[in-house]
Amino acid sequence: MALIEYEDATPEVRAVYDDIMAVRQTDWINNFWKALANDPESLRRTWENLRTVMEPGALDPVVKEMVYLAVSVTNGCEYCVASHTAGARKAGMTDAMFGELMAVTGMANQTNRLAVGYRIPVDDRFKE
Amino acid sequence: MALIEYEDATPEVRAVYDDIMAVRQTDWINNFWKALANDPESLRRTWENLRTVMEPGALDPVVKEMVYLAVSVTNGCEYCVASHTAGARKAGMTDAMFGELMAVTGMANQTNRLAVGYRIPVDDRFKE
Amino acid sequence: MALIEYEDATPEVRAVYDDIMAVRQTDWINNFWKALANDPESLRRTWENLRTVMEPGALDPVVKEMVYLAVSVTNGCEYCVASHTAGARKAGMTDAMFGELMAVTGMANQTNRLAVGYRIPVDDRFKE
Amino acid sequence: MALIEYEDATPEVRAVYDDIMAVRQTDWINNFWKALANDPESLRRTWENLRTVMEPGALDPVVKEMVYLAVSVTNGCEYCVASHTAGARKAGMTDAMFGELMAVTGMANQTNRLAVGYRIPVDDRFKE
Amino acid sequence: MALIEYEDATPEVRAVYDDIMAVRQTDWINNFWKALANDPESLRRTWENLRTVMEPGALDPVVKEMVYLAVSVTNGCEYCVASHTAGARKAGMTDAMFGELMAVTGMANQTNRLAVGYRIPVDDRFKE
Amino acid sequence: MALIEYEDATPEVRAVYDDIMAVRQTDWINNFWKALANDPESLRRTWENLRTVMEPGALDPVVKEMVYLAVSVTNGCEYCVASHTAGARKAGMTDAMFGELMAVTGMANQTNRLAVGYRIPVDDRFKE
Repeated sequence: MALIEYEDATPEVRAVYDDIMAVRQTDWINNFWKALANDPESLRRTWENLRTVMEPGALDPVVKEMVYLAVSVTNGCEYCVASHTAGARKAGMTDAMFGELMAVTGMANQTNRLAVGYRIPVDDRFKE
Repeated sequence: MALIEYEDATPEVRAVYDDIMAVRQTDWINNFWKALANDPESLRRTWENLRTVMEPGALDPVVKEMVYLAVSVTNGCEYCVASHTAGARKAGMTDAMFGELMAVTGMANQTNRLAVGYRIPVDDRFKE
Repeated sequence: MALIEYEDATPEVRAVYDDIMAVRQTDWINNFWKALANDPESLRRTWENLRTVMEPGALDPVVKEMVYLAVSVTNGCEYCVASHTAGARKAGMTDAMFGELMAVTGMANQTNRLAVGYRIPVDDRFKE
Repeated sequence: MALIEYEDATPEVRAVYDDIMAVRQTDWINNFWKALANDPESLRRTWENLRTVMEPGALDPVVKEMVYLAVSVTNGCEYCVASHTAGARKAGMTDAMFGELMAVTGMANQTNRLAVGYRIPVDDRFKE
Repeated sequence: MALIEYEDATPEVRAVYDDIMAVRQTDWINNFWKALANDPESLRRTWENLRTVMEPGALDPVVKEMVYLAVSVTNGCEYCVASHTAGARKAGMTDAMFGELMAVTGMANQTNRLAVGYRIPVDDRFKE
Repeated sequence: MALIEYEDATPEVRAVYDDIMAVRQTDWINNFWKALANDPESLRRTWENLRTVMEPGALDPVVKEMVYLAVSVTNGCEYCVASHTAGARKAGMTDAMFGELMAVTGMANQTNRLAVGYRIPVDDRFKE
């Protein structure tokens, strides 16, 4: 699938690219968006959702990026791990934070399986 | 697999239970540990790892619990979602934080698949 | 989806049920097959494959059942964990073997994620 | 693991290769089968199952290929995404169909996690 | 997490509920939306995305629902399997179509793992 | 993330590397550990756990390595599949054993999904 560069993009696609660069305060577009641009409606919808979901709110941007990274690691998505490691770094993730994030992610994946394998019933207190 | 209650536990298992309650400042043990107690060595090792990984460090406890929850949701582990929702709530997660955490987790799962489906090459800038 | 009991089954389905009971040296059919029987061709094909794959060969039946269980745990399939725990027990899995199996399964799920998160390049020696 | 080429294959393996090329009306064998040929019994069984499952029936071949692709994307299998994108294209998947397929696949992965994270009880009407 | 009924909902949430019932030509709201309503912005955004993605286009509604079901099965989401089985049935999925859908989904999950386990290199022809 | 070579490592990291080489009776360190060494505490903890979990016990080392491989295949972890294929081979896995291991792993992934898709209730006999 072709990656659609800015200079080859339709005005509709360029408008999304412009917004991505403005929101992220950067001057380039990464391949994810250049690929999605093959389906301009998906590009627009995905970007709008991502922008809304990732903007500062009750959670800090760096926390949101780290959660995104932990999920991407769990799903084994190479592209997403690369891009969200960069995103989390840019938002302030230090080496120490990355180390702890991976430790928590690894631990969760381990105990998730133990809970399934031992077929553990949910405690009444956890049922609210 | 039997859930091993405190009163039926060996001294070795009781020592772990005591440490869990002391560290968590609580007076009960949830089923996960009561099941693992069938293999005392696994119980001890898993608890020691979890205690170390989850203690305050470069990341806040509530952030660690939310990452744990996001991973558990991604893996579809019912028990873990129940127990770590409780854990994150206890550590300070509000309704607004939960709502944003789920939104980020859902969004990550969506774009992870788009990145795979569109077979997007990793940008050179993301390769470090 | 209805579970199709022996007495309500067509001769084609009964023939599969009979073979399952003969191979497993048992006198009952578990729900998995009763559900698949809604699509007799799927029932026949799935059973023939399973019978072939699980018969003694270079790997012992108990090893095959434990591998099946480790995969089912990793996928979070509740039904499969229940049925293959029973299968592995019947084939000779002891409590100690189960404990170690879960420890290995949990550990693998943990380090799988660390390898992805740290984006570790495959060593040349592992490329054969 | 060596890829076994037609000229190096045993008659048993060649017979499977011949059937693959005849059914697919093509003159080459892709690497998946050349690797499986290291275990001729697995090669034969896997091909027979795939041929049966993918032949026209209640579902169109292009629908079957798109479902195969959606599953492969969800599992993050790079090889399978590449081969089944080709397969679906050959069966008639257009750019517009691919765009919608990815949108549905991404959306399903998102809402699957929301349903788990919000711990939503199954509606009585969905229990049949 | 409370399920928010129509009579207890804010006007903002009721507007989404009304649109869901209008688009689906039904008179009830399933639990998924009643749970998401705890975060009205997530409710609105998720519904708008779902409505857009699932509307008739290059793919038939029944095909979209079956793809959704195949993904939900692969992710092991019990709620989603229940709701999208109902959705696909309503859109026209017959017993025969369901049987073939499950057969394709199962087969894809099997060969996805074989491709990974045999470490199969992507054929040049599949790289476009 | 830099791979930390023995000559550039701190004494703390070197001590772990030395133990890895001693236990595995080898003279090199694979990239997994060189990457984890960026977080010495994670390196030490992960190695100690792995060493304990993988040592001979109720299960043979080759069985443990094969289970590790089956899980890694199911998770789609390329690095882990490469390293644990090597580990299992070293522990005695033959071509025939590998072929059967992949067949069981593939079959489990297939039937796991069928059990979910057909929404099969757990048999009373499997509830213990």
